[in-house]
Amino acid sequence: MKIQPLADRVLIKPAPAEEKTVGGIIIPDTAKEKPLKGEVVACGKGTKDEEMVVKVGDQVLYGKYAGQELEFEGVKYLIMRQSDIVAILA
Amino acid sequence: MKIQPLADRVLIKPAPAEEKTVGGIIIPDTAKEKPLKGEVVACGKGTKDEEMVVKVGDQVLYGKYAGQELEFEGVKYLIMRQSDIVAILA
Amino acid sequence: MKIQPLADRVLIKPAPAEEKTVGGIIIPDTAKEKPLKGEVVACGKGTKDEEMVVKVGDQVLYGKYAGQELEFEGVKYLIMRQSDIVAILA
Amino acid sequence: MKIQPLADRVLIKPAPAEEKTVGGIIIPDTAKEKPLKGEVVACGKGTKDEEMVVKVGDQVLYGKYAGQELEFEGVKYLIMRQSDIVAILA
Amino acid sequence: MKIQPLADRVLIKPAPAEEKTVGGIIIPDTAKEKPLKGEVVACGKGTKDEEMVVKVGDQVLYGKYAGQELEFEGVKYLIMRQSDIVAILA
Amino acid sequence: MKIQPLADRVLIKPAPAEEKTVGGIIIPDTAKEKPLKGEVVACGKGTKDEEMVVKVGDQVLYGKYAGQELEFEGVKYLIMRQSDIVAILA
Amino acid sequence: MKIQPLADRVLIKPAPAEEKTVGGIIIPDTAKEKPLKGEVVACGKGTKDEEMVVKVGDQVLYGKYAGQELEFEGVKYLIMRQSDIVAILA
Repeated sequence: MKIQPLADRVLIKPAPAEEKTVGGIIIPDTAKEKPLKGEVVACGKGTKDEEMVVKVGDQVLYGKYAGQELEFEGVKYLIMRQSDIVAILA
Repeated sequence: MKIQPLADRVLIKPAPAEEKTVGGIIIPDTAKEKPLKGEVVACGKGTKDEEMVVKVGDQVLYGKYAGQELEFEGVKYLIMRQSDIVAILA
Repeated sequence: MKIQPLADRVLIKPAPAEEKTVGGIIIPDTAKEKPLKGEVVACGKGTKDEEMVVKVGDQVLYGKYAGQELEFEGVKYLIMRQSDIVAILA
Repeated sequence: MKIQPLADRVLIKPAPAEEKTVGGIIIPDTAKEKPLKGEVVACGKGTKDEEMVVKVGDQVLYGKYAGQELEFEGVKYLIMRQSDIVAILA
Repeated sequence: MKIQPLADRVLIKPAPAEEKTVGGIIIPDTAKEKPLKGEVVACGKGTKDEEMVVKVGDQVLYGKYAGQELEFEGVKYLIMRQSDIVAILA
Repeated sequence: MKIQPLADRVLIKPAPAEEKTVGGIIIPDTAKEKPLKGEVVACGKGTKDEEMVVKVGDQVLYGKYAGQELEFEGVKYLIMRQSDIVAILA
Repeated sequence: MKIQPLADRVLIKPAPAEEKTVGGIIIPDTAKEKPLKGEVVACGKGTKDEEMVVKVGDQVLYGKYAGQELEFEGVKYLIMRQSDIVAILA
């Protein structure tokens, strides 16, 4: 069983705290207490207003308050709209 | 007699509390007190802005405050807009 | 003389309290104090954004705070936008 | 000299209090203190988004807080958008 | 030098207090303290969403809080969007 | 080096206080403490929703709270959207 | 590894405080405490509503509260929507 996000939503596995600085990403100042980096594990099909540009496997940066938390088979995920993702680490 | 949702609304039978962790879905932290998983039992026909992608029988995840409660022939349901459904469990 | 709703509005005769559970519709919890079921007695012609799908005679469910009350020839009605109707009982 | 409403506005002569129940229209409960019935005395030409469907002479029902009051040649009127009119008494 | 309103704006010379009841226009109740009648002295060219229907010389009624005040060559004017004008006195 | 406003933005050099009444423009009442007149010194290229109608050299009137202040080579400017300009002095 | 902004977002390297007045840009008054000038280091591909007009290398001015801060390989950046950029220094 897997989670298929609807519309322009994306399922993200947040980077664990110990990996947050891998690749040099450090979340500054007031934003330090929450991961802002994660990996896309599932994508919706988009909508007519929002074509999907992220894909499974992308390392992404997202807004601090983006998405809803959910736990599935013991792993914590975030599900958010693609528009809450600010950048891809390429 | 049955309930036919209008427009882009969906009738959902929330998963009973004892089944909430079946399939590994656990609602974390502050969200634990309400089921977030359910089964689609009826769908509207959609609107020109919102085509229906969920169908009867789909297991879905939905936002914690989504929809309106209603009781029909002794069973509790939620009726919500499709846009309040975040993912299908496939 | 009759009431002709304008645009996408619908005139509804709320089900009397004693009939509210006919067909098994029970309004749960905090919503119990107001009928949520009624019969469509007149419909507007719709707008370019909202085509009418309910018709006279339909038994409908509507949001608890939907519409404006009015009394006509001794009968109480609600007049609301079609978008406030969540489902048809078919 | 006459008042020509602009766009989708309608000039309405509210029914006097003593005529408010003529035709059986009684405004219930909390809404009793203001007339909700009136006669259309002038109409705008509509807009591309709002075609005019009411016409001069129509008896209409309107929302309790709709429109702006104005007095012209000793008579009190309301000027409101057509969308504030909920129904025509036909 | 003259003032050319931009877009769908209109320059209005408010009627002086002593002329406010000429033609029978009396502003009732709570609205008495501000003129609501004036003469159009300049018009913008409109926008694709708002075609101009008022023209220079029109006597118009406008909302009590409409527009911005400005003084030009010793005369006080209001500059407002056409949509703040509720009617033309014709 | 010069400042090229983006989209439908306009760079304005506010009229100095001593010139504010040149041409008869006096800002009345509560608005007196800030210049409302200025000269357009640079324009954006517009957007598909907002075609530019002001041009460099235009004397314009703008809303009291319009725009952001910036200082460039010792001169103070305002940068604002064209829609914040209410009129051209022609 | 590099940061690829999504949609109409732009990655900006704010000018260091000591360079803020290079080229004559001084941020006046209440805005002095934050840099408002920066260099575009990466751009999204735009959206159907927002075509990209800034490009890598552009010196830009942006609103004081625009964007989200992030640190990457020891350098502080801002990521913001293009619409938060008010002008290009050309």
